[in-house]
Amino acid sequence: MIIKANNPTLKSWIDVDVNSDFPIQNLPFGVYSDTHTKHHACSAIGSYAIDLYELANHGFLSNLNIPTEVFNNAYLNDFIELGKETTRALRDRLSDLLDSNNKELQDNKAVFNKIFKPQSGINLLLPVKVGDYTDFYSSIDHATNIGTMIRDPKNALMPNWKYIPVGYHGRASSITVSGTPLHRPKGQMKPADAEVPTFGPCKLLDFELETAYIIGKSTKLGESVSTEKADDYIFGMVLFNDWSARDIQTWEYVPLGPFLSKNFASTISPWIVTLDALEPYRTRGYEQEPKVFPYLEYTGDKNVDIKLEVAIQPENSTETVICNSNYKYMYWTMEQQLAHHTVNGCNVNVGDMMGSGTISGPQPHEYGSMMELSWKGTKPLTLNDGSERKFINDNDTVIMRGYCQNDKVRIGFGECKAKVLPAN
Amino acid sequence: MIIKANNPTLKSWIDVDVNSDFPIQNLPFGVYSDTHTKHHACSAIGSYAIDLYELANHGFLSNLNIPTEVFNNAYLNDFIELGKETTRALRDRLSDLLDSNNKELQDNKAVFNKIFKPQSGINLLLPVKVGDYTDFYSSIDHATNIGTMIRDPKNALMPNWKYIPVGYHGRASSITVSGTPLHRPKGQMKPADAEVPTFGPCKLLDFELETAYIIGKSTKLGESVSTEKADDYIFGMVLFNDWSARDIQTWEYVPLGPFLSKNFASTISPWIVTLDALEPYRTRGYEQEPKVFPYLEYTGDKNVDIKLEVAIQPENSTETVICNSNYKYMYWTMEQQLAHHTVNGCNVNVGDMMGSGTISGPQPHEYGSMMELSWKGTKPLTLNDGSERKFINDNDTVIMRGYCQNDKVRIGFGECKAKVLPAN
Repeated sequence: MIIKANNPTLKSWIDVDVNSDFPIQNLPFGVYSDTHTKHHACSAIGSYAIDLYELANHGFLSNLNIPTEVFNNAYLNDFIELGKETTRALRDRLSDLLDSNNKELQDNKAVFNKIFKPQSGINLLLPVKVGDYTDFYSSIDHATNIGTMIRDPKNALMPNWKYIPVGYHGRASSITVSGTPLHRPKGQMKPADAEVPTFGPCKLLDFELETAYIIGKSTKLGESVSTEKADDYIFGMVLFNDWSARDIQTWEYVPLGPFLSKNFASTISPWIVTLDALEPYRTRGYEQEPKVFPYLEYTGDKNVDIKLEVAIQPENSTETVICNSNYKYMYWTMEQQLAHHTVNGCNVNVGDMMGSGTISGPQPHEYGSMMELSWKGTKPLTLNDGSERKFINDNDTVIMRGYCQNDKVRIGFGECKAKVLPAN
Repeated sequence: MIIKANNPTLKSWIDVDVNSDFPIQNLPFGVYSDTHTKHHACSAIGSYAIDLYELANHGFLSNLNIPTEVFNNAYLNDFIELGKETTRALRDRLSDLLDSNNKELQDNKAVFNKIFKPQSGINLLLPVKVGDYTDFYSSIDHATNIGTMIRDPKNALMPNWKYIPVGYHGRASSITVSGTPLHRPKGQMKPADAEVPTFGPCKLLDFELETAYIIGKSTKLGESVSTEKADDYIFGMVLFNDWSARDIQTWEYVPLGPFLSKNFASTISPWIVTLDALEPYRTRGYEQEPKVFPYLEYTGDKNVDIKLEVAIQPENSTETVICNSNYKYMYWTMEQQLAHHTVNGCNVNVGDMMGSGTISGPQPHEYGSMMELSWKGTKPLTLNDGSERKFINDNDTVIMRGYCQNDKVRIGFGECKAKVLPAN
């Protein structure tokens, strides 16, 4: 399929820095507020957000048959619900309007300030109302590292790991947008050498470098989505920090999985980069051995080459990049995850979010969590300001970034960042 | 606190059978539809549902300051959101209107058919939109039975079990209302003696006898709810069948917990019995040893004496009651569960649902799942029609019932039932 808006030769009449995440080939979707606006849907070009409600109100989207009110909602769910044909048509139309060869909007100086808002002057909001949130565990390097550390290096992967895209349900209510600070959680912990557990602020606070995809089409209970059709049900992707309290997790997670160690806060980036925009960066998937069950088989290049990084910024200091990873390292693809999630008839709804699980690469600097980077705290990292980190300290800000780049175009996700405040 | 509507001496001018779940002291809340009505909020008296939208439209609720439109929604969330003072005032008002000494409604024959609908002629709908659903694991007899069967009888309970009300997140989208059939799920299984997993319809389909409570007041991220205040945040309770595919569960659940083995369907009863109505049946909680952490301590009688039963009805046959249990057997109370859930700052929202976990009692006929009743399939149950069950067969209907009874009043939950159809 040719996606018109992805044309690498397009240039916008809006200046876009060569390192911007938001060239004309990206056109992600979000929701913003500012002093005049409670919540409008928006897209992005260079350093601007594009107010889609104003764009529609000024008649620039009149041929698309989109009710203007969907751009005036707190969340994108109703917009996404219109279906991929419509959201794709909007992205194509945005691409036309921003194209340097198109004068419609370019020459209409009077409306520029109403439609284009410097991103530095707005608040980007949580883009979707997440109904259900599922987190997978699909990076083989991450699962191997964790298994090696907490179990047995010789049997690091659980017997089910190469048969099942292992996943579990997470808490939707505590998903927040980039920029929202969080408090260090309190909870029960039991150090391995202690007789009984203790209660207090968690000591081993960690990030998990993840991406998540947003469901773009609902299914009914009883229906399954095949790997072949899965992309029709995936609207786009965000960066995702699945904050984790390792000491709470260790004590609580047997036998039913992580709970309070995860549900105190999760942070996502505000821009949903469409699956369409990511299409040029698709790459070959992991070689899967043993062969997977037929419902998990797929054809084509279904991984995505997304360069990922994590930085820690201590209070009143500069940031240090501590991890460079890549989404292409995933063993299980999004399409396999969705096929697995629905093979039993479980229904999915527009706005549901599916996390990748921590994305680690094979090299130590590619590990996607402090647990792995500091190897359970045995190898502290040294930051640029000389301070050391085994896990995340109070008042540290953790920043995740991601982008795709080929020889023609670079598109990115913006930042997923949040500051850790002391326990309440 | 004296709750006026609980007065055991009240009698309604509507005939209520002595074994009805819905005497004037219950007055639960639900949502119904019929050929004329898309969705109206309702309460229940005897064999009737009371249409609250019609009641309001006819001026009977005019002093309560409730916007009539909250009774015309698909779900009760907006009604519950009004707060306990308001929902309690409505229950009190219903109690007045139904009291045999009150003539307002009793003598108004013209409106009777508009307001009172025989329950046999309506569809009861899912009463709330569940945002997040959490399931606990709080019955000590159940946890001990499972631990004995799958691990070690001498260390049946995990080390964390008596310190933590163990819980995990479940899938909200696949929660359905009583009467909704489900398909046997397909998935991966690996029998203990097999080298590799297989894929197909699950063979060990089970119910789990649970109750669930519905959150009635939201918190903000970062806030915690104390055991003392917890009841202010609990609107009421329903019966809950947490359908489980044991063979899928065994293969998938390590290390992150149950996933596809649970999220194919969960069934709740349609009437939310308010925590207020359950107040007279509060009873002493389990003696907890070791002593719990201060945030889990509580005072007063916080268990509830709810008699529970489960029946299996094979196709074209009569039902057999296979289990009699009681909610009073719970080790951890609802108040402790909620205090634990929020101690890390996790926020809860109106409509969230918290499952109890399987409720087993100490005696074999009190076990709340087939896994326990048939002891992993080693002791088949014989039904009234002579057929045997180790787990649930295709076309079986599983029916759960629950009621509270003291020497004066009996109130109940209605039925939580669903039929298992063959795999798709």
